[in-house]
This record gives sequence, C-alpha cells and structure tokens, in this order.
Amino acid sequence: MRFLSPLGSTRRQIFFYLLPQFQANSIRRESTSSFHTTMDATEQSLRQSLSEKSSSVESQGNAVRALKASRAAKPEIDAAIDLLNKLKLEKSAVEKQLQSTMSSSGNGSLNREAFRQAVVNTLERRLFYIPSFKIYRGVSGLFDYGPPGCAVKSNVLSFWRQHFILEENMLEVDCPCVTPEVVLKASGHVDKFTDLMVKDEKTGTCYRADHLLKDYCTEKLEKDLTISAEKAAEFKDVLAVMEDYSPEELGAKIKEYGITAPDTKNPLSDPYPFNLMFQTSIGPSGLIPGYMRPETAQGIFVNFKDLYYYNGRKLPFAAAQIGQAFRNEISPRQGLLRVREFTLAEIEHFVDPENKSHPKFSDVSKLEFLMFPREEQMSGQAAKKLCLGEAVAKGTVNNETLGYFIGRVYLFLTRLGIDKERLRFRQHLANEMAHYAADCWDAEIESSYGWIECVGIADRSAYDLRAHSDKSGVALVAEEKYAEPKEVEKLVINPVKKELGLAFKGNQKNVVESLEAMNEKEAMEMKATLESKGEVEFYVCTLGKNVSIKKNMVSISKEKKKEHQRVFTPSVIEPSFGIGRIIYCLYEHCFSTRPSKAGDEQLNVFRFPPLVAPIKCTVFPLVQNQQFEEATKVISKELTSVGISHKIDITGTSIGKRYARTDELGVPFAITVDSDASVTIRERDSKDQVRVSLKEAASVVSSVAEGKMTWQDVWASFPHHSSAAADEQE
Amino acid sequence: MRFLSPLGSTRRQIFFYLLPQFQANSIRRESTSSFHTTMDATEQSLRQSLSEKSSSVESQGNAVRALKASRAAKPEIDAAIDLLNKLKLEKSAVEKQLQSTMSSSGNGSLNREAFRQAVVNTLERRLFYIPSFKIYRGVSGLFDYGPPGCAVKSNVLSFWRQHFILEENMLEVDCPCVTPEVVLKASGHVDKFTDLMVKDEKTGTCYRADHLLKDYCTEKLEKDLTISAEKAAEFKDVLAVMEDYSPEELGAKIKEYGITAPDTKNPLSDPYPFNLMFQTSIGPSGLIPGYMRPETAQGIFVNFKDLYYYNGRKLPFAAAQIGQAFRNEISPRQGLLRVREFTLAEIEHFVDPENKSHPKFSDVSKLEFLMFPREEQMSGQAAKKLCLGEAVAKGTVNNETLGYFIGRVYLFLTRLGIDKERLRFRQHLANEMAHYAADCWDAEIESSYGWIECVGIADRSAYDLRAHSDKSGVALVAEEKYAEPKEVEKLVINPVKKELGLAFKGNQKNVVESLEAMNEKEAMEMKATLESKGEVEFYVCTLGKNVSIKKNMVSISKEKKKEHQRVFTPSVIEPSFGIGRIIYCLYEHCFSTRPSKAGDEQLNVFRFPPLVAPIKCTVFPLVQNQQFEEATKVISKELTSVGISHKIDITGTSIGKRYARTDELGVPFAITVDSDASVTIRERDSKDQVRVSLKEAASVVSSVAEGKMTWQDVWASFPHHSSAAADEQE
Repeated sequence: MRFLSPLGSTRRQIFFYLLPQFQANSIRRESTSSFHTTMDATEQSLRQSLSEKSSSVESQGNAVRALKASRAAKPEIDAAIDLLNKLKLEKSAVEKQLQSTMSSSGNGSLNREAFRQAVVNTLERRLFYIPSFKIYRGVSGLFDYGPPGCAVKSNVLSFWRQHFILEENMLEVDCPCVTPEVVLKASGHVDKFTDLMVKDEKTGTCYRADHLLKDYCTEKLEKDLTISAEKAAEFKDVLAVMEDYSPEELGAKIKEYGITAPDTKNPLSDPYPFNLMFQTSIGPSGLIPGYMRPETAQGIFVNFKDLYYYNGRKLPFAAAQIGQAFRNEISPRQGLLRVREFTLAEIEHFVDPENKSHPKFSDVSKLEFLMFPREEQMSGQAAKKLCLGEAVAKGTVNNETLGYFIGRVYLFLTRLGIDKERLRFRQHLANEMAHYAADCWDAEIESSYGWIECVGIADRSAYDLRAHSDKSGVALVAEEKYAEPKEVEKLVINPVKKELGLAFKGNQKNVVESLEAMNEKEAMEMKATLESKGEVEFYVCTLGKNVSIKKNMVSISKEKKKEHQRVFTPSVIEPSFGIGRIIYCLYEHCFSTRPSKAGDEQLNVFRFPPLVAPIKCTVFPLVQNQQFEEATKVISKELTSVGISHKIDITGTSIGKRYARTDELGVPFAITVDSDASVTIRERDSKDQVRVSLKEAASVVSSVAEGKMTWQDVWASFPHHSSAAADEQE
Repeated sequence: MRFLSPLGSTRRQIFFYLLPQFQANSIRRESTSSFHTTMDATEQSLRQSLSEKSSSVESQGNAVRALKASRAAKPEIDAAIDLLNKLKLEKSAVEKQLQSTMSSSGNGSLNREAFRQAVVNTLERRLFYIPSFKIYRGVSGLFDYGPPGCAVKSNVLSFWRQHFILEENMLEVDCPCVTPEVVLKASGHVDKFTDLMVKDEKTGTCYRADHLLKDYCTEKLEKDLTISAEKAAEFKDVLAVMEDYSPEELGAKIKEYGITAPDTKNPLSDPYPFNLMFQTSIGPSGLIPGYMRPETAQGIFVNFKDLYYYNGRKLPFAAAQIGQAFRNEISPRQGLLRVREFTLAEIEHFVDPENKSHPKFSDVSKLEFLMFPREEQMSGQAAKKLCLGEAVAKGTVNNETLGYFIGRVYLFLTRLGIDKERLRFRQHLANEMAHYAADCWDAEIESSYGWIECVGIADRSAYDLRAHSDKSGVALVAEEKYAEPKEVEKLVINPVKKELGLAFKGNQKNVVESLEAMNEKEAMEMKATLESKGEVEFYVCTLGKNVSIKKNMVSISKEKKKEHQRVFTPSVIEPSFGIGRIIYCLYEHCFSTRPSKAGDEQLNVFRFPPLVAPIKCTVFPLVQNQQFEEATKVISKELTSVGISHKIDITGTSIGKRYARTDELGVPFAITVDSDASVTIRERDSKDQVRVSLKEAASVVSSVAEGKMTWQDVWASFPHHSSAAADEQE
C-alpha cells in the first residue's frame, strides 16, 4: 500500500482497498484529520494573543521584582502591580476563550460519538452484526452479519446486481479468494500492498506508525493549551502531509516528538513496511505461495481474453464481480469501517482509449448533486452542486463513461437510502492519482467518522491489462477491424552492420541501436544530409559522443503498408464498491429516535426504504385467538406467494411495544389483525394506519413495498384507521 | 479428515466437506469404486476357466514334449498335438470372452467419459466456468464461474434462500472465512481434518496415498487378463475396504504391491496425515494462527447463544449460512466436483432432543422417492421408492425433523431440475456415522462420475455445541420452563471428611471421590447395609482394594427438590449443501444433444428449468432495420420492468443459428421480432412457436418463466406459428 508516486515520494491511499493497485494517495487521511487541516482563524489569533499576554505577564512580573529590589517608591510599585494584575486577568480571559474554542470543537466530536454509540448499540443488540467468535473473545477487525444484517446485505447485493449487472448487461464472474503469488506479483500487491509498522522494542506489540503520529498530534492540538500558535500550526501541517512521508521521515518525526509505545511507554522500532495480505500456501508441497485476494479486480483482468471473445470481440463491455476480499490490518480501528475481511463489488468497464463516449450518458446527464472537483479543493472552497452533463462538457469529469458511472453510482446510493445531502463525489488531486490514471472520483458519504470513501470510480487507463500481459506473456488486447484497409506510411531504418562494424568495431552495437531509435524527423533529416553531403555527425548517447555516419552505413526509407486493423490495450474504468461501508453509512443515515407515547423514553427507528429493509412487513394478531390466528395464516400465505418477506409476532405484548420492536429493525409496514374481515396497515415513519380488507392486505403491502404505489397513494385510497383506535393500540 | 471412529480404527469420509466434524466415513469411496465392489459372476467363471485352460495347455504341451523326447509313435504324438491345439483354441476362446466382458464394462465408462467430455467442453466453451488464473497456467482445483455460470449459481442461491431461509423463517448469518485456531481446535479440524499423503522420495512430489492404491487395483482389474480370479477378488476387496485402512495398513499395501511414484517410478515415503486447511496468520505479530474455514457450520455454533436469545429463547429454530469454504486438496481430481474453494450452504436446526417432531412434516409426508436405507445396502438390495411418511413411521428415518428436511431437500433438488430417477437418499451405515450421531442421510445424485453426495442431512445430537461450550467456557444451552414447578427426588451423598480423614489418612481423597461417584442403586444399598449392620465393605477402584466404611463416615439421603426449568444442550440437525456439486450435476442432467435441421451436426441443449436458466429470454430482430429495432427496444424495456433477464442478439446470422446458440446456453424462451405488431415466442425444448402481439410478449414470457403458466397453457392460448414460417427461420 505504500506505492511509489510518479514524483518518487511514497504516498498512502486511505481507503486503498476501494481503489487498489498503484494509485497514489489522498493528502487527506482518515476523515477526522480534515478537522485539523486548516488552522481556524479564531484559534490562531487566540493562541497568538495568549502567547503575547504570557510574555507581557512575565516581563511585567520582572519589572515589579526589579522595582522592589531597587526599593522604588510605593506608588510606583503599586502601579506596576496593578498593571501586572490587569495583564494576568487579560491572560486568563484569553485562556478561557481558547479553552472554550477547543472544547466546543471537542463537543462536536462528543456528539458524533454519542450518536454513533446509539447506532452501534442498537445494531449489536438487534444482531445486525456480531463481533466474530465472540465466545472466544473475538478477533479485532472481524464481524458477523446477524439475521437482519444478512437480509440488508442480501437486499443491497440484489439491488446492485439488478442496477449494474442486469441493467447494463455486464459479464459477471466469480473467482476464488485463494490466489497464487504470480498474479499478485504482476498486480504489484506482493511488493507494494503495505502499511508502515513500528514495534514496541521490548514487548513486540505492533502499531501502525502513522496512527501513533496522528494520535500524538491530535491530542496535543486538542488538549494542550500551552503550545504556541507556531507549534499548533506545525502539528496541523504534519497531520495534513504525513500521508506523503517516507518511512525515514515518519521515523524521524516519531523520534523528534519522543513518541513511545502507548501502553508500556517503551521505545519503538523504526517504521518498516508490513504486507497487508493474508499469506498461505497452495497444495501439499508448500512450494506454491498464495494469498487471500486483497480485491476482486484481478480475477477479472486475468480473464479479459475469454470475456472479450465471449462478448463477440466487441468493445466496450463491462465485467463485474461480487466477493470477499481480505486485508490483514495492523490494528483495525473505526469499527465496521475498517475490517480484515469484507465484501467488494467491482466493475471493470473495458473501453477503446480513443473513444470513451457512452451511449446512455444522456440518461444521467441531467442529474445534479454535490461534487468536489480538484480545483475547489485546492482553493479551499466547499463541495458544490453541479449538473453532471455540464461537468463532463466542461472537462471537470474526464470523459462520458466515467461520468456515466458517477451518475449510476449516485442513483444506486440514493435509492438505497443514502441521504443525498451527505453524499459527495470528490475528485482525486493530481498527487493522489497514479501517473497512468486519467481521472478518479470517490463517492464519499458523511458519517460520524467524517466523510468516508465508499465507492471509488477510476479511469485506470491500460495499466492492469498491460501488467498481466507482460507477466503472463498472453496478449490482453482488443482489435478494431477497419471497414476498409488503411494505407499507412512506415519509417524503415536499416543499419548496414558490415560497414558499421568495420568503422566502429566494439562500439558497433551502440551505434546500431542509436540509429534504430531515431524518430521520423531525425531519420528524415539524416537521410537528407547523407544524400546531399554523403556524411553526417551523429550523437550516440550510450557512447556519450558524436560519430561520423557515411552514406553506405545506413539506408533510410518510407514504405507504404496496408493495415486491416488496429490492435490496442483497452482502457479500464473501474467503479469499486465497499459494500460493508455503504451498509454502515446507510445504518447511520437511516437511524433516528423519537419519544415513546408516554414520553418517558426514546425509541429507535431505522427508516430503511422498503428496498433494503431486512423484513418488509410484520403481522400482529391483536390478541391470541383462533379467529385472528386463521386470518394471520391467510395473510402470511399470500405475502409468501407475492414474495414479501415477513414475520409473525404472536407474543402477547402490547401492540405499541410490538410496533417499537419492529421499528427498531426498520420494518416499513405492519399488519395488525384485529378482525377477521379487515385489518390495519401501519406505515413505520408516519405511524399512519389505514384499514384494508383481509383479502387486499397482502397485495397493498406488496405494491407499496415494491414501489408500485407510494404510501401517499395508499393513504388516499383507504379509510384511515381512527386515531382513537390507533391510540388504544399504541 | 481422518477421524477416530468409536471402534478405534480410522476412517475417512469421502465427501467430508458436506458432513464435517467427526463423522466417521463411508465404506464406499469415490463412487466409481462401486463398479468394482461386487465380483461379476461371469467374469469370475471366465477367469476361473481361463486359468484352468492355461494349466491344461501347459500340461498338454509338456505331454507332447515328453512323447517327442521318448520318441513315441507318430500317431500317438499327432493325437497329443491335436488335443493341444484343441485346448489352445479353447483357451483363446475363453480369453476373447473375458476380454469382451472387461471391455464392455470398460465401454460403459468410455461412454460416460465421452458424455462428460461433451458437457465439460460446452461448459468451458460457453464460459459457464473457466479454470482459474488460466493465463498463468492455472492452479489445479480452482475454477471461476463465467457469466452464465454466475447467473446459474445466483439463481440456485436465490432459490435456496427462498426455499429454506424465507419459507422456514431461518436466521441467516454471514461469518468471516478467516477463522482463529481456537475455534477449529474445538471443532476437531486442527487435529483431525487430514488426508493420508505419500511423497516421491526423490522429487518430493506429493500424492494421496489412497488414490495410488485405488489406481493400481483398478488398472490391474481392468487391463490385466492374466491375474487369477483369487487375485481379482483380492483387488476388489481392497477397493471396498481401503477406506478403513490405518496409515500403517495403507503403507503396507503400497509396499506389498510395489507401487511407486506414477511419473518417476521412484520409491514412495510411508503415508502420513496432511491437514487440509489453508493456514494463515491473523494480525501483524504472526502470533495468532488462523485458517480459512473448511465449512461454514462453526460460525453458526459459536453464535448459538445470541441466536437463541434473538429467537426469544425458543426452540426449535434454524440458522443458516451461505459462504465460501476452503480445502487444500492434496491432488484434486474429478474436475468441478473436488475443488479447493467452494460455496457451501448450511443449515443448523436446533431442537429439543426430547422432541424431534416437526409441525410441518405433513407437508412432505406423502412424497415418494428413491431411498436407500442401511438394511438394503447391507443385504445387497437396490435403492427403492419409499413414502417418506412411512419411512419415518417405521423408524427407517430416525425422526420427523430429519424426515422433514429430507423431504424439503428432495423438493429443492427436483425443482432445480435434478432428475428424480437419478437422485436417491442413502442412509449412512452404522460404521460411517460418528458415535454421537443419531442418523444421517445423503442426497446422492448420479452423474458420469457415479453417485455423488451433494447434500448431507445429519442428526448430529449435541456434539458441536458441547465442544464449543467446553472449549470456550460459555454455556451453549437452552431452557425449558415448566408450566408449574416439578418435584424431583435427588440423591445426596455427604462424605464426612473428618471421620474419613481419621480412618484413611492419605487415602481419604480417593475414598471421598469413590463415595461421591456411586450411582443411586449402589448408594441406596450402602445406606441400607449401614443402617442394618453399621459397617460395609467398599471397593475403591483408585486404590485397588476394599475399605471398611462405618455409619458415621457418610450420610446418604434422598431429597425432594422443586425444579422450575430443565436446562439442556439442544440437538442439531444439519442439512449441508455443496452448491458447486449440485450445479455440476444439474449441468449433466440438463445436457442433451439433438441433430441440426440439416442433420449434419449434433447441437447441444441445456434443458434448464426457467428457475435456474442463466438468461430467461433472448430477443432476436429477424433482420436489422429500424422498425424491428424499435419493437425490440419496447420488448426489452418491458422485460426489464417485469424483472426478466434477457439478451438481445442483433447479429446478422440466421435465426436457426441464433436459436442454436441460445439453446446451448439453456435459454428457455426466444422472442423473434419479425413484424412491428406481433412477434413469435419459441420454447427451447419443444421448439414450438406461438404468435403473440408485441404488447403481450413480455408478460407472456414472464408468466411462463415464473411458473404462473405452463408452456402448454401458452400453446393452447395463442395461434401457432406456421411450420412453414418456422422452417424458413430455423
């Protein structure tokens, strides 16, 4: 994961797994660091003023002491003491102001943490997820999805498959997680998929080097009021640029600040790279090294040739894969956002590099949403609403195909229930992108952890296919057949080796290579000179000197050839989805609380759209009797036949409690059976209820759950359940 | 995988991954071995006769030579030569007969192999699957699903989720593949999930020991006519019982037969166990050993407590998981049937061991299908059609819940398209089952490899939960609250330690333990003796002698206690599905060929039911013009809106060729656009075509693809497309 950037410095990709191989990295790191990247003006002036007041207090103190020592007149001394006290008061006022400035930003993070804790508690209590292997005290960075979590995940993946694979006719593949080394050597992961690690020199405990430096700077900034404005600015600068540190630079900073192991205070080793892939060995001999794949993309690249033939040797086409990926994090933090095993959904759209238009771009060109182009980031502006069509037309987004996917990702995320005000597409800065990449945009979702990269959409040019072509020796190329053959002129340089050998002896080879390496302009100039003068001076760079080339030593000509096709390596545009992150952000965006009827407690609600809700409907017989039980069975059978997942709750608890339980799971509709002729249907968010005949109940729920009707339609078409009766129930 | 059976011998489970932890194993191994287990009567008598004829020829040859040596009379010598020639002719006739017997059974396997090759070629050519990492020359035992394979897999899994999880209200979980060692230590996999391996002593190449022995015996039996009937019987016996060989026995047989490394003929090492789990290490320290899970079941067991609470602390309930499992095979064979990474779908149904009835058993009790109970296997009978209800009533199937799942598995497999005549449920023999298992049945599907275990359905009693309870120290139990408290009598034995100490000094502890270990009968007898005689002789096994116990040394009584609940470890009934195997068998069952119209070639057809077909419908504009293109767009849009996956084929090739291409992918319906008012719909298997209005086309295809109508209904409701026109097209 420390990849060499084009400029030779090493950079790190924050959420690298979404934007893998060789992409250089964000200056911005874990999203919280953005809170520190700009030095707040108030804070700066307060720190400045505090430092001035401290100096004034100190020098006035000295002045008072000097007056006393020189036994100056009492009024003179009293005046000096008055001034000292005044200065002390002023200093203390500034101190208080700074304190309150710092803690108010601190309170923000406290609120975020309290909110997160409420969400996470609910998720864990209702088994949306479970720390894996809990009875054995777990393993950090590994989580199970429990029943409602599985249902949400399965809904998200079904919709992904529908929205991308089926609607776009993509070629789905499903490759193994176990991957032989040669594949990941070609992709660069064996050499470069690393994080910098330091070890406690006495206990051997491992830490991520950048985490320690970040924690140190953050704590200093948040809790230490005595540091000067200059020092504070330095820490903020370190936080902003530490992404770009080499191992040596990072090590030097850790030494400079005297950072030690957090628990033991022991000294730390120098930072060194740790490969994040889980290693294993394939077969019984132990001779075939393998890894658990760190992303699913490579499985698609190595199949390019077969897929291209399957697609009738036509471009563009897209292949897609949904599957597990693995990353042996040094010290996972951020709960469900940074885990050691996760589900990725990746698309590789292969396209002619000379034509990146998209036939369906007009379907998304009118969309408007928050975009954060490079220029706005560099000039300190905020993300702004842009029309996608204009962004492509103006060249803000590099090409139509990239733009099309940005639009489709926007539609995918917002239909899932991601709040469009807390979703933005952020363009990579020039130094974040790999040298070969044409353009990259991340779909970032705002959560209690800050802005989280959840989808990366990158135009990766021909990089990946070329890497596997080179390593495997199998040409991963496409052809464009010309409608009729094209005549092309080709330069032909034929060095006459015999004459060159006689003239240059041991240097012959260097001269031949230099002659052959001439471009068209150089060659045609030489040809002209040789024809007019019979001799020419020629610089051979591998010899570092000029040699004299005579007419009989080389023949240069242009020949006409007919070409029937163009052979090229396709470009790949890669939208890559971190499914677990999207789901976690969805949980936060859908979570809310509301007071119970009695007002004595806050009830949790997940306002999932029916599309992702783990269960679409619950069925409650009001009381336990045979009549209601029969009616419940009828409804259940009909719901099953129309494919609506549902649950029957026959516990004797009050309907209000049962609604609360169901709200906390995000179930959008509840059917209460309180008669054998008609029932009530209650909608989760409005808590409104309508009365519907027993026979119609399943089909009404099915229509509204599948988006064929809105709840407003239902509300307009059926008698409302009297609020008195509703009151009675809740 | 070599698990210790209750009898102390080691056994091996053929398709262990479906029936994991500690189940002892089938006597039957890879299904082909069943072709050899019984010595065919004809073959036996032929071998006998051939051996007799050979002896006769030999002794008559000797006789002739003796006559010649003794210069006997010519007529006598001629008569002897005539007899020799006659015997030689007889021997040769028998030899031919045996040869033909052997090769006819050989032909059977040739036919099976030719069929398999045709299926596999089609699957690979149409990218149903691809050997993984092909451009790097692949890794044996790893396969990718290509686009149609992915679609089939996704359909199979969706149906599985619908049929089991949704219809049965199971609790789905999704756990990581990376698993810490402690979990797999508890389950027994770390110690016992092994195969026996031998190494080429010079090159180090590894082989599965049983494979080499099996290959040797099979080849001898099939190709060597000179072996005696006794020797042939011996080889058949070895094939039948080699499952039960210890490493030493297996090694001895390999030595006895002089088996060497197949490629080099080098000597082989002794067999030794090789653990089949892919090993890795979790976290950066390298101190937490981990494995890629060999099955998904353990993830469910370790979550039992949370799931039980989630289910309102009620039994029975089932949890389910679909996911990847890993198995580092020594030398994978049998193509897609034995692979190193595969998708499992497992159910763990937790039930009160005292009540294994099932409320929905009556839904399946009338089903009749091929069952192969233990008794029929032991007495050499064939599998037979049984009524499930009767099989449970008669105790052939141990309990209703097990029977219910057998029935549900039957419905699942046959609805997918598995031929019910080539599906049987085979009961495990007593020596195949682990000592704790109550009953096990395998759903076996017949393929070109023989009968393949695709689903295992086992009543595993309380084994798994107990193993994790013991290892983790967390009680994995359920409670049954009594409606009213039950009065129970409990035996109370109180050794009086002071008196025992005085009497037995250093032996006191042994005596106390022995007293406390008495069962009720022993204790009550002692009580009676002490009361009548004041003293009793008592054998302390840990001391190996009798001691004399006096009345004051122990008090024995029965106390009545009120119990409010019963606490117990639930039994688990585990249906475990090898998804890849089911899909492969489905491919074979659905594959057929039929002559092309011209009769000059055989065309391949996959007769998938619409439920699993990778694409439900293709749309063919008859010729490329704007009118048909518009109509095609209308149909495509409508198909998308009713959720029918489809593909448009606008290539200029003939409709006949396009139908053939689509048949080979198993697409059940094709819409040919040959007008802008109406279109034809063609059904794949009958090749029948009806004419339907443009507007209705999508809804007709959707109804028949989703099973709301049959093709017969369609055929009866719409005008048939004239055969003349159809001829023109095909």
